[in-house]
Amino acid sequence: MNKKKKNCAASHVTMTELVLPNDTNTLNNLMGGRLMHWMDIVSAISAQKHSNRIVVTASVDNISFSRPIGLGNVVTLTAFVTRAFNSSMEVFIKVEAEDIPSGKKFETNSAFFTFVAVDQTGRPIDVPEAMPENDFEKELYDGALRRRQLRLVLAKRMKPEEAKELKSIFKID
Amino acid sequence: MNKKKKNCAASHVTMTELVLPNDTNTLNNLMGGRLMHWMDIVSAISAQKHSNRIVVTASVDNISFSRPIGLGNVVTLTAFVTRAFNSSMEVFIKVEAEDIPSGKKFETNSAFFTFVAVDQTGRPIDVPEAMPENDFEKELYDGALRRRQLRLVLAKRMKPEEAKELKSIFKID
Amino acid sequence: MNKKKKNCAASHVTMTELVLPNDTNTLNNLMGGRLMHWMDIVSAISAQKHSNRIVVTASVDNISFSRPIGLGNVVTLTAFVTRAFNSSMEVFIKVEAEDIPSGKKFETNSAFFTFVAVDQTGRPIDVPEAMPENDFEKELYDGALRRRQLRLVLAKRMKPEEAKELKSIFKID
Amino acid sequence: MNKKKKNCAASHVTMTELVLPNDTNTLNNLMGGRLMHWMDIVSAISAQKHSNRIVVTASVDNISFSRPIGLGNVVTLTAFVTRAFNSSMEVFIKVEAEDIPSGKKFETNSAFFTFVAVDQTGRPIDVPEAMPENDFEKELYDGALRRRQLRLVLAKRMKPEEAKELKSIFKID
Amino acid sequence: MNKKKKNCAASHVTMTELVLPNDTNTLNNLMGGRLMHWMDIVSAISAQKHSNRIVVTASVDNISFSRPIGLGNVVTLTAFVTRAFNSSMEVFIKVEAEDIPSGKKFETNSAFFTFVAVDQTGRPIDVPEAMPENDFEKELYDGALRRRQLRLVLAKRMKPEEAKELKSIFKID
Amino acid sequence: MNKKKKNCAASHVTMTELVLPNDTNTLNNLMGGRLMHWMDIVSAISAQKHSNRIVVTASVDNISFSRPIGLGNVVTLTAFVTRAFNSSMEVFIKVEAEDIPSGKKFETNSAFFTFVAVDQTGRPIDVPEAMPENDFEKELYDGALRRRQLRLVLAKRMKPEEAKELKSIFKID
Repeated sequence: MNKKKKNCAASHVTMTELVLPNDTNTLNNLMGGRLMHWMDIVSAISAQKHSNRIVVTASVDNISFSRPIGLGNVVTLTAFVTRAFNSSMEVFIKVEAEDIPSGKKFETNSAFFTFVAVDQTGRPIDVPEAMPENDFEKELYDGALRRRQLRLVLAKRMKPEEAKELKSIFKID
Repeated sequence: MNKKKKNCAASHVTMTELVLPNDTNTLNNLMGGRLMHWMDIVSAISAQKHSNRIVVTASVDNISFSRPIGLGNVVTLTAFVTRAFNSSMEVFIKVEAEDIPSGKKFETNSAFFTFVAVDQTGRPIDVPEAMPENDFEKELYDGALRRRQLRLVLAKRMKPEEAKELKSIFKID
Repeated sequence: MNKKKKNCAASHVTMTELVLPNDTNTLNNLMGGRLMHWMDIVSAISAQKHSNRIVVTASVDNISFSRPIGLGNVVTLTAFVTRAFNSSMEVFIKVEAEDIPSGKKFETNSAFFTFVAVDQTGRPIDVPEAMPENDFEKELYDGALRRRQLRLVLAKRMKPEEAKELKSIFKID
Repeated sequence: MNKKKKNCAASHVTMTELVLPNDTNTLNNLMGGRLMHWMDIVSAISAQKHSNRIVVTASVDNISFSRPIGLGNVVTLTAFVTRAFNSSMEVFIKVEAEDIPSGKKFETNSAFFTFVAVDQTGRPIDVPEAMPENDFEKELYDGALRRRQLRLVLAKRMKPEEAKELKSIFKID
Repeated sequence: MNKKKKNCAASHVTMTELVLPNDTNTLNNLMGGRLMHWMDIVSAISAQKHSNRIVVTASVDNISFSRPIGLGNVVTLTAFVTRAFNSSMEVFIKVEAEDIPSGKKFETNSAFFTFVAVDQTGRPIDVPEAMPENDFEKELYDGALRRRQLRLVLAKRMKPEEAKELKSIFKID
Repeated sequence: MNKKKKNCAASHVTMTELVLPNDTNTLNNLMGGRLMHWMDIVSAISAQKHSNRIVVTASVDNISFSRPIGLGNVVTLTAFVTRAFNSSMEVFIKVEAEDIPSGKKFETNSAFFTFVAVDQTGRPIDVPEAMPENDFEKELYDGALRRRQLRLVLAKRMKPEEAKELKSIFKID
């Protein structure tokens, strides 16, 4: 059987949001929870595009928030599927913010969300393989196995000693 | 100088939300991004209670979403500060969902969010130490160092070989 | 027939909300309507927990708003069923607000909402009796009959001269 | 000193809302809390029109909810100031719902909200007197004193035996 | 066959909105998109009242935004059906804003929206004719044909040379 | 004086939205007003990018809504500045919708919004010229003058007989 393949570019999604008063804390900066809400929507749409299926969020990898994003800033989120494993897809999301009047534009953070494609009854269903084409996509594709093992270890669904790929982070043979 | 101390119970917060139509996907289940938005609010309030300061989300640890939460379900989020490090606080959040007419109640997931306390100009400021009292709080307090190292390694702010506590996950001396 | 009984503690619900810009008036204080919206949700969840049924708001007793609640304040609402009458339940709601950076915490108001349990077609259906256990619950349980008569009189569904319990407010025999 | 007077018609406000999915419970009927939120906005605007001041909600009288309002229904709220007492104003609100495709239109409920006019620092400030002109306005104007006493008694700010007007409800001389 | 007729007054709708923080841009003025959202709701309700049908927005004529509307202002939108063409209805909307504390009230703009009445399957269905009664309604009724031709020409569904009524704008015989 | 120039591509913005329950009418299709709200945001961001200024919506050209967009569909809006006139900018917006599970993707409509760049006090301020580069951009640039005259005529700020460019639509010399 030849499994269907789809390149990473086919799942590329760009989302632009304006930071409104209700999205901000008392320092007038975007709240982390609101940003994660947007990240979930953009990456869910990306996983839908890859699989042509309804998708549900399965997990979110560690996210750091480094720079504050201010009220009135424009936030641009871009996402694409880096790799598929049976019914699950890892999606990479990059977030950039721009304070347009001052012309300042900066990358604020990036993240990996994992989705599972499901049928109308909510059961997992296989998705096409993701084919990386450029260097950046290939790098993310290669790291996906390692990140998957970390997720499984952290969710206590894999024993750490079996996580061969993951160990490479810690430079252990 | 004696640094101020505060027990974990003092930062305990309970939040209850009703899953409304706009919170759901086309399978009528709560979207992951909306749940993370609520997790961020409940844990930010908990970190505020511990520090009596404005707080900003610094990072979110890996979260898995295991069971779907349906439209009309009641979601209960409880949070408390597990440990403080200078200006940062780790908050544990537990999420439970309940389908009241059918009487089904289940734990859906848990997570760790990290916040930094800041002054009015947005600069980090020291917070009291967190004092665990019962066994569960002590277990989370003890694991906080290991999780912190994982965060720093993942954010590339610590070399994996220096993450002594973390290595214990992989049973490496 | 032995009617099912449930103690008041079983319907206890805590809800925590952060006052966001869109919840406030031009003085940056929480609008009364937004607070009532939260009161309705927390008390509906409480009545659902007591009855394990869908519930609909039947009436709201007089509410006074004494102290303003500011932008960024944390509002904690707690609710429980005080007494049940056939298919209806009276719920008591207490509202507290906290300005965390300044450490000010104050009770802002309390209220009684009444709900009717209904089946899937929207028809009223009997609920368990509510059993008060501590002094505060007993006091509210005892007053519930008087408040119910006031509701019926105000809704013109009971003649004032028949409202025996209610008259005690006015110290009339 | 001649105090300014304004007729009731000058504070008349009409608000129309469409019941959207997020406003409804699992029976697809408008939730009571959402309706009270709208009642608060329409009556606050009415009190602002009467006083040309910022106003804050002081109290809400007993409200009964008799008929369910369905998803997609059009809700019309009309409000006007019935009587002013120094810095406070009583506002009458009538709610009607309409299921347009079926042509069904019905009055769902009515309520009295009380507002206090405040200056920029939040202090109460006197408002013009309200002048009723037609029979309905006069009836509400006359009853306002009685309702005010009930509010004060229920808020424990007036002794029941002093509430002379109120006693007339109970036909007690 | 006698087609049903309905006068313009029967579709009159008034909607009042308070400008909240999330409705405003960084100059604290109401965003145009939010105002158009309200215009669409008030005019859809008006077209529903005229037709007693579900309606869908078919087109929006040119709208100009002349004066800024500030945070906290009260916006009053009034709408009525000016003329019906088979299954479509043209609705006129007038927008007024009021800064109540300063007593400033001004007309901000007006617009024409067109709706199509549909049955439960979404197919167009005939609506009653609209009967103008006063001078203003008659003027709008008379201009409706010209505006309709402009819409058809702009949507490339009518050749400009066939738009006889429209040419009168340009004073061409 | 050499006025600053900027190419059209520099103001290109892509926005992706998921149609949620509260965005839909009783036929489960996206309401026109909600779509216009999104169009206003994406085009305002585009005009901000071109001018590096705060912008306010000045006018919206005739918009037709041809095909319904369903609940759960993904809506992609793309916008860029077609031409600048002193302080005002015309922005072209194209809207596409996609029903991902069925793989259907279709263009739903397009529109022209006009914005004025303002300084911090709200006064109009000059913006760079827009430079079209490809054929599509040039075609829109060329038509901008004609559309501008139509706007001015419709807003009664230009006499029809002076609208030379506009007359070409009606093939009148």
